[in-house]
Amino acid sequence: MNRRRFSRLSAAGIVGVTLPLDAVSRAVGHQEIRVDGTRLNRRMAELARFGANDAGGIDRVAFSQADLDARAWVRSLWEEAGLTTSVDVAGNLWGRRPGSDPSRPPLILGSHIDSVPGGGNYDGQVGSMGATEVAATLHDQGRTTRHPLEFVIFPNEEGGKTGSRALAGQVEAMELELETASGFTIGEGLRRLGGDPDRLSDVVRAPGSATAFLELHVEQGGVLDADGIDVGVVEGIVGIMRWTVTVDGTTNHAGTTPMDRRSDALVAAARFVDAVHRTALDMPGRQVATVGRIAVEPGAPNVIPGRATLSLEVRDLTMEGIERVYDAVRGRADAIGQDTGTSFTFERFYTSGAAPTHPHIRDVVEASAGTLGLSHRRMPSGAGHDAQSIAVFAPVGMIFVPSRR
Amino acid sequence: MNRRRFSRLSAAGIVGVTLPLDAVSRAVGHQEIRVDGTRLNRRMAELARFGANDAGGIDRVAFSQADLDARAWVRSLWEEAGLTTSVDVAGNLWGRRPGSDPSRPPLILGSHIDSVPGGGNYDGQVGSMGATEVAATLHDQGRTTRHPLEFVIFPNEEGGKTGSRALAGQVEAMELELETASGFTIGEGLRRLGGDPDRLSDVVRAPGSATAFLELHVEQGGVLDADGIDVGVVEGIVGIMRWTVTVDGTTNHAGTTPMDRRSDALVAAARFVDAVHRTALDMPGRQVATVGRIAVEPGAPNVIPGRATLSLEVRDLTMEGIERVYDAVRGRADAIGQDTGTSFTFERFYTSGAAPTHPHIRDVVEASAGTLGLSHRRMPSGAGHDAQSIAVFAPVGMIFVPSRR
Repeated sequence: MNRRRFSRLSAAGIVGVTLPLDAVSRAVGHQEIRVDGTRLNRRMAELARFGANDAGGIDRVAFSQADLDARAWVRSLWEEAGLTTSVDVAGNLWGRRPGSDPSRPPLILGSHIDSVPGGGNYDGQVGSMGATEVAATLHDQGRTTRHPLEFVIFPNEEGGKTGSRALAGQVEAMELELETASGFTIGEGLRRLGGDPDRLSDVVRAPGSATAFLELHVEQGGVLDADGIDVGVVEGIVGIMRWTVTVDGTTNHAGTTPMDRRSDALVAAARFVDAVHRTALDMPGRQVATVGRIAVEPGAPNVIPGRATLSLEVRDLTMEGIERVYDAVRGRADAIGQDTGTSFTFERFYTSGAAPTHPHIRDVVEASAGTLGLSHRRMPSGAGHDAQSIAVFAPVGMIFVPSRR
Repeated sequence: MNRRRFSRLSAAGIVGVTLPLDAVSRAVGHQEIRVDGTRLNRRMAELARFGANDAGGIDRVAFSQADLDARAWVRSLWEEAGLTTSVDVAGNLWGRRPGSDPSRPPLILGSHIDSVPGGGNYDGQVGSMGATEVAATLHDQGRTTRHPLEFVIFPNEEGGKTGSRALAGQVEAMELELETASGFTIGEGLRRLGGDPDRLSDVVRAPGSATAFLELHVEQGGVLDADGIDVGVVEGIVGIMRWTVTVDGTTNHAGTTPMDRRSDALVAAARFVDAVHRTALDMPGRQVATVGRIAVEPGAPNVIPGRATLSLEVRDLTMEGIERVYDAVRGRADAIGQDTGTSFTFERFYTSGAAPTHPHIRDVVEASAGTLGLSHRRMPSGAGHDAQSIAVFAPVGMIFVPSRR
């Protein structure tokens, strides 16, 4: 999303801010509450200075000094807004605001502010600053909500969603040894943030320990922008499965082997790639299937490939949907193998569970967008987000705003 | 070809030897002349000892000590057979035998004895020893042919057909610097054989300087063996063209880009690979077309490839045939590009001219095979051979015998 469009949304009231307020407003008596769009835009610009590089992008990789500085700055804004701040052992930055009914589990708002190397100015920042603006507005207006509110900045989203996954009990000890783009391992990085990687189990949240989690984020595809839609009502974060597909044929001399006597692994692989694309395209639903990697052996212009190795990735809002695509392409692979004298083998090497958003939160987002006169569309999130970890223990919702090329 | 089949052919009279004798016999009065199959088989076995490795293969790469030793051994056989031997500046080993009419340009018989690392026992050896057996038989029987006869062992066939290409004036200075499997450059290797790489132009042959060249060789494909055919009557050595094909699409996130909004370079490349195969398969003729190499960028399971780079190789007995295939696949590429939102570019990086064999020699080979009761089939040579260089200045013929897996 570029600045121009962001300003337009701000002028109408930032939807990602307005929506939690919509839920909140019911608790405080349906009074109209509006955030300060000018302040929000100013703070987005200020945040963008942390780790700004000469190319106009952001090098605020997790655990870098720029990341630490930006987190300290956000923390100061939260304290200004009256929040009680803390950092948990997983490096999550929290800001808490009591509700009128302390027995209720909190509503959580937030996102992440770390970037990939050379990242953009919006991504998770828009949700982090959106949540911050909610806190500031409630503070300015002296409002008290019925539910306690928690604001959160998750660390290392880009490098493995470490903070949010720790809350779900999903971080494995092995991960802590991985070196990140900052040069520090994840374990070292968590310590730099004030965390303690040896005690991650302390932060695991029990199911029901939060009323809901809402994350505003820039859409990572180009659909909203291309179609001129203001708001994406996220139906869920898709599940992912990945396989290594091996096609075995017969290596032969390309000059001396007639066309009708070949078992060309690349020809078989090519038909498979096309079948994968057409299968995902033609099936009802919004599943996607991609072959992003291919290698052939021996790989010389004058040799018929005897082996092709491909990656296959399928994403859908349900794991059943993924299995449906997989079953269909396996069937196609069998037929291609028979036609070409080759054989296909599939080995799954990665699975990430689908995380549907809560139907009620979708309805609230959609209704609020309607009230604000913003066009909207239900859509899957094809990319991963912190919200999918939180979905393990709480109802979640996500709102997308357009990303401008 | 394994030993069993070779023995069977020997028992019937080695066709590659008999056929030159058939032509020769017309000159000497049509007397029936038969070579000594037992001697030929024994000498094939003796030759196989030079460079034999522990795995049962042959490491007689050009310019190695084993290559030098084998050439010295062949030379001694030729001198035993009364030939006048010499080595030219390009390292070609020659054995000359006068004819009754010295004004006639010579008939040339021969092949190569160098191997790839871990090569087999037949390949060019069968033609080299076949020619040697012709010389020995004529000597034993005291025959004089009308044409002078020249016997030849070409050096470094496997590493660039250096000897035969020098006769055609095709060796470029740059090639002499290339390091070969022997560890020596081609230039150094030629000196090891007694040649002089600085004077290669001395050996260039003028058109008409030979009456004909005939080469016996093992078929490098598996067609004759698979179909139980004794003799391949080679119609020519195919021409070759190779292109680098680049397919440009749009790199995108595989999770967030819907199927109907992709410009997937690999999907386009896959359809192209299939189109290449089907085009060459379905056209009349025996052209072959192969994609042996493919790479995609960026090449990650979760990224839609923005670029695919492929090799395209087309071979046919005529360059017009190659152009026909190329034109057809270019047309298919244009259509695929339109359908997929991608663009194709083609850059040719290699051309090797087609070298048809002489129709009269084909007829003689075919008739002789028939006389000997050997089944035969006309076929292209899909691989390169020394004969294609000789075709630049003289009519050539080639005879294939089956290669057993």
